[in-house]
Amino acid sequence: MCQLLGMNCNVPTDICFSFTGFRRRGGDTDVHSDGWGIAFFEGKGVRMFLDPEPSAESIVSEFVRSYPIHSLNVIAHIRKSTLGVTSLENTHPFMRELWGRYWIFAHNGHLPDFKPELDGNFIPVGNTDSELIFCWLLQSLQQRFGASLPPRDELFEALRELTLPLAGTGIFNYLLSNGDCLVAHCSTELNYIVRCAPFAEAHLKDEDVTIDFSQVTTPDDRVALIATQPLTDNEAWVAMRPGTMWLFHQGEVVGVGDTAPSPVSSLGG
Amino acid sequence: MCQLLGMNCNVPTDICFSFTGFRRRGGDTDVHSDGWGIAFFEGKGVRMFLDPEPSAESIVSEFVRSYPIHSLNVIAHIRKSTLGVTSLENTHPFMRELWGRYWIFAHNGHLPDFKPELDGNFIPVGNTDSELIFCWLLQSLQQRFGASLPPRDELFEALRELTLPLAGTGIFNYLLSNGDCLVAHCSTELNYIVRCAPFAEAHLKDEDVTIDFSQVTTPDDRVALIATQPLTDNEAWVAMRPGTMWLFHQGEVVGVGDTAPSPVSSLGG
Repeated sequence: MCQLLGMNCNVPTDICFSFTGFRRRGGDTDVHSDGWGIAFFEGKGVRMFLDPEPSAESIVSEFVRSYPIHSLNVIAHIRKSTLGVTSLENTHPFMRELWGRYWIFAHNGHLPDFKPELDGNFIPVGNTDSELIFCWLLQSLQQRFGASLPPRDELFEALRELTLPLAGTGIFNYLLSNGDCLVAHCSTELNYIVRCAPFAEAHLKDEDVTIDFSQVTTPDDRVALIATQPLTDNEAWVAMRPGTMWLFHQGEVVGVGDTAPSPVSSLGG
Repeated sequence: MCQLLGMNCNVPTDICFSFTGFRRRGGDTDVHSDGWGIAFFEGKGVRMFLDPEPSAESIVSEFVRSYPIHSLNVIAHIRKSTLGVTSLENTHPFMRELWGRYWIFAHNGHLPDFKPELDGNFIPVGNTDSELIFCWLLQSLQQRFGASLPPRDELFEALRELTLPLAGTGIFNYLLSNGDCLVAHCSTELNYIVRCAPFAEAHLKDEDVTIDFSQVTTPDDRVALIATQPLTDNEAWVAMRPGTMWLFHQGEVVGVGDTAPSPVSSLGG
């Protein structure tokens, strides 16, 4: 499997602290050593760094860790391959353009039986099921909404409906962003935290590094972090319930939906 | 205007030497200080570094200069904006996927009157005429060839036919690659050189750096470099005639075509 990291903020924020811990999971504190990548939205543009080397040792990841890029939406991924060889074209996140916007996607899991028909507008370059799913999601959005981006809520509901039938057929944790919002689907494991005033100290799990966010923020800043496993050991991360989908915008949760039957209450009845 | 740099090789080669000189033109030895970018094909994958900062001063360009990435096809660009603000989304090169391949495009010039109708499959994210032209080129290829990549020669002829009517309407020097071949169109200014055995020393124009290629190559290596202006001052660069289009594959010229009326002979008749 793989590990996911996402960030969604209300002011452009760098991800250096979180990435410092996250990158260690790629071949050091964890086994995900089949490449890594990170994509930063800056306005409508995207900076993407991809590397088939283990993130814990990669010179490019050391550069990303030390070079602050300020972004409203970031998606990162470290890979433990299940399907597809270790190569640059199989390295997440993946990027495509739809409706004059870039879309970024990263996936943890696999859906071995998913064989969609593609209409030709989005074709995988590599041979992962993850890129195939991404192409099919964008194709489905294009078929549903035609020529233009729908309102955020309609986009989220469409993604939920597209995800619903797949969620039962495999492991399908994913992060998707178009630079405006970030969608997180928890199929088995995904955690999040929203940092806002009053800010406090945070200490990484994977490296002995502490930051005092009160020293590097303003009172209006709000940052949502999403990760396969919590990145810090002294903050109250929220475990997403498997079978839920979350919409983040400007650093907060603005939508939640089910992608699996809700747990049945054992009380009463 | 802008400056272009392309490389096409028969074995994966790094571009560190050429990029060392090229990057100085972005705000140091020349005025192109509105951002820069470089894309490296590695197999079917692409690594792209984009930065709205001047390349001569950019920390990212210093990283790219010092980190050897081995590639068969590279396209780089430094920008002096004519249309479109300085921002990441307006920074060349641009990338899209068609037929399960990434395509990379960079442009020097402008075509102010070009207002194509887009069918929606490739839409610019930024507001440069360059990205608009790229989207239209890919749309036109998709419309012409349907579901799959044509043979290299047919692709080149199609691009020549698409470029022909535009070439007279503005300045349209461009580089385009799909990872297999590299197409260079000279509208006003573009030079190339093919380096092959016996290799010799080369000395940069923009920085006092010399390399002895005989020490870092094997006898079968072949590398074509394409640049708006020659990068070295002791090699025989070939000036492409304005109104010509060139197809590079495995480090050599494998096709040339006209995109303007051939010069009329003044002899005889």
